[in-house]
Amino acid sequence: MAVRALARELPAVEERPVMPRGFRAGATIAGIKASGRPDLGILAVDGEAPASVAATFTTNLVLAAPVRLSQAHLGEGGGRFGRTRAVISTSGCANAATGPAGDADQHELAAALSAALGLEPELTLSISTGLIGTRLPVQRIRAALPGLVERLEPTEAGLAALGEQMMTTDSRAKSATVRLELPDTGGRPVPVTVSGVAKGVGMIHPRMATMLALVLTDAEVEPPTLHALLQAAVEPTWNQLTVDGDTSTNDTVFLLASGASGCAPVAAGSAAADTLGRAVMAVARSLARQQAADGEGATTLVTCQVSGARDDGEARAVARSIVASSLVKAAVHGRDPNWGRIAAAAGNARLDGRQVSLDVERLRIELCGTLVFAGQPIDFEPAAVSARMAEPEVLVWLDLGLGEGWGEAFGCDLTEEYVVENSAYST
Amino acid sequence: MAVRALARELPAVEERPVMPRGFRAGATIAGIKASGRPDLGILAVDGEAPASVAATFTTNLVLAAPVRLSQAHLGEGGGRFGRTRAVISTSGCANAATGPAGDADQHELAAALSAALGLEPELTLSISTGLIGTRLPVQRIRAALPGLVERLEPTEAGLAALGEQMMTTDSRAKSATVRLELPDTGGRPVPVTVSGVAKGVGMIHPRMATMLALVLTDAEVEPPTLHALLQAAVEPTWNQLTVDGDTSTNDTVFLLASGASGCAPVAAGSAAADTLGRAVMAVARSLARQQAADGEGATTLVTCQVSGARDDGEARAVARSIVASSLVKAAVHGRDPNWGRIAAAAGNARLDGRQVSLDVERLRIELCGTLVFAGQPIDFEPAAVSARMAEPEVLVWLDLGLGEGWGEAFGCDLTEEYVVENSAYST
Repeated sequence: MAVRALARELPAVEERPVMPRGFRAGATIAGIKASGRPDLGILAVDGEAPASVAATFTTNLVLAAPVRLSQAHLGEGGGRFGRTRAVISTSGCANAATGPAGDADQHELAAALSAALGLEPELTLSISTGLIGTRLPVQRIRAALPGLVERLEPTEAGLAALGEQMMTTDSRAKSATVRLELPDTGGRPVPVTVSGVAKGVGMIHPRMATMLALVLTDAEVEPPTLHALLQAAVEPTWNQLTVDGDTSTNDTVFLLASGASGCAPVAAGSAAADTLGRAVMAVARSLARQQAADGEGATTLVTCQVSGARDDGEARAVARSIVASSLVKAAVHGRDPNWGRIAAAAGNARLDGRQVSLDVERLRIELCGTLVFAGQPIDFEPAAVSARMAEPEVLVWLDLGLGEGWGEAFGCDLTEEYVVENSAYST
Repeated sequence: MAVRALARELPAVEERPVMPRGFRAGATIAGIKASGRPDLGILAVDGEAPASVAATFTTNLVLAAPVRLSQAHLGEGGGRFGRTRAVISTSGCANAATGPAGDADQHELAAALSAALGLEPELTLSISTGLIGTRLPVQRIRAALPGLVERLEPTEAGLAALGEQMMTTDSRAKSATVRLELPDTGGRPVPVTVSGVAKGVGMIHPRMATMLALVLTDAEVEPPTLHALLQAAVEPTWNQLTVDGDTSTNDTVFLLASGASGCAPVAAGSAAADTLGRAVMAVARSLARQQAADGEGATTLVTCQVSGARDDGEARAVARSIVASSLVKAAVHGRDPNWGRIAAAAGNARLDGRQVSLDVERLRIELCGTLVFAGQPIDFEPAAVSARMAEPEVLVWLDLGLGEGWGEAFGCDLTEEYVVENSAYST
């Protein structure tokens, strides 16, 4: 039962923001959220040159206006990577399904931001989260922008404020940092930081895409290489996250590299790229787990690890099917070691429209470390397993006995509170 | 906005069981359910010849023992159709993921049933529903079988008892009947009945398969033709039903034809096959809607109809995506006309692993008869729509503006009660 633990191959993560060199950030209250909480944030790139940036966006065909603007401004690389000087973040309004007027609003904000910072609008990007179908209060945001631009800080507090501003139904801010060393042009190690902030926690079921996250580094990386690192990091982390099975219209991850660390340019395929890539993946995995743990109404993080699949893709699909199952999620909430629901969810896993291989006679299931099924039911003490299911994280492990494929997925329990939160009148 | 209403092309349905000629049925308490409610049922075919039977089964790879037994006994047609004399139905225990011992249990019941009825075991089929991973109490069931066989009735009461026996978390029995006329060999019309019973109401997300249902007719139809009629009926009805996104290990539909009506054999492709096929489809659609309305914890039936898709398959996929969305389901529960969630779910629809075509500028959405989106948000009175969402059925209509494709899907709201019901300790 040797599980190849992805987490152990990755560097250690601190769950707090640390601002990499070359960036400033901050947030303020512009009056978008009815709650009066911070709802406008800016990330700005210091220095003479713009930062490299790589992006992943939602695959939802109802694309929000901020996503369309960002894709247009990232002309290079088909809207997936390029260079940027600033990101504007609004929360409380998704600016999605708002038609041509919503696109015009978003461009007006880009113009206001670029004027306040003295940039070309094409060197700005945008993210937004909140209710779909409502318009942004453009005048209020324009009025708040110049003051915020004055107060941007190259500090942990600035990055933390930006992360807190992104929150909607999140109960806590999400951040993760990895510190590493990369060689400078003389081969001497220089300290480099990778640090990210992200928001959850509803309409989350990334599919070759993700939700809102900003990951920053002061490494020096060309945009195409940065994009390859981001794609490799997203696949086993954010694409394995589900809260409610719904993929949002606004999902965006930006990975920005300022180059201000003084490290040598990170070349594709180099040892430095491998080191940096694992740091980015570790930050992405930590943020995805924080998002799952804080899923709407959730009390428990559910991690499913699958070994013995025919390949990693099939392992990931089985893990996703289990953490996405409403019945498994409800059983976890009830601390019910009802492994039959886990077996049924495994038997339903699909990948690219076809069913994933499974032979129930070879299937083994462990719940919180207790073997409960091995081709047939295993006698176990339900009360003992139930007690362990009261921990903040429940680990479900399956071995399919078919090959060497390994994967994991992250989800949360389904609670009455989820229903209450999402039944509330919001339009 | 002319919606091609499938329902109007189908014959009228009575929501009650009517026993077609040539069958007897009944149920009793064998002691499988802890509640002491009926948990053992039998359907028997009268007369000299066995009935034609067509079947659809779950696509879950964790196949329950009763499904494996039925597929083995339906050797003809690759386990999809054949001839049968009796069906044994047990509830309270799924007999799934029970290993070789579970298969042996199921064969022992088939032997006991065939002995009591004086048949070959291969002329029996089996269905079962309940908790996954528990064994059937075979001795108690064997003890109850002979007495039940004596009391089988060729009546509505017998069929109703069988339908009630199948219930688990269902709050009410589900039945549907269509009466029609088919020509006898002399061309004179003879009355024919198609009547079905079904159970829900959790782990329901049929995927080229269905949940438990028995549909009976006294028409005379060869098994391959019967199978074609069943497949055509299942695709737009049960395969468009979701309660919780989980596909069960035990899903089974049997369509049995006794031939006792005196109608001429229904030939494939004939006018009689078309008439009978529409009757079967009407019964299937009614049962699917009854199952959706009685979904675990549900208070509201959600019907989504989609027109203007590139083809019917894409329309059905969009409709399925909307009724399966946790956020749409929670909004319906809260009577919240939050159409942004509907647009987002439409933008996520997938069919055979690829995304369904959607152009948000052409998209139109009506909620309970009110246009709320037409390429951009439409001003409407939320309170008025919210009031209509308190009705027992909420109709969501979308036009994609891309073609002639039409489809519908059936679901229910997501309630706190669903979570409570499925968090209860059950192992």
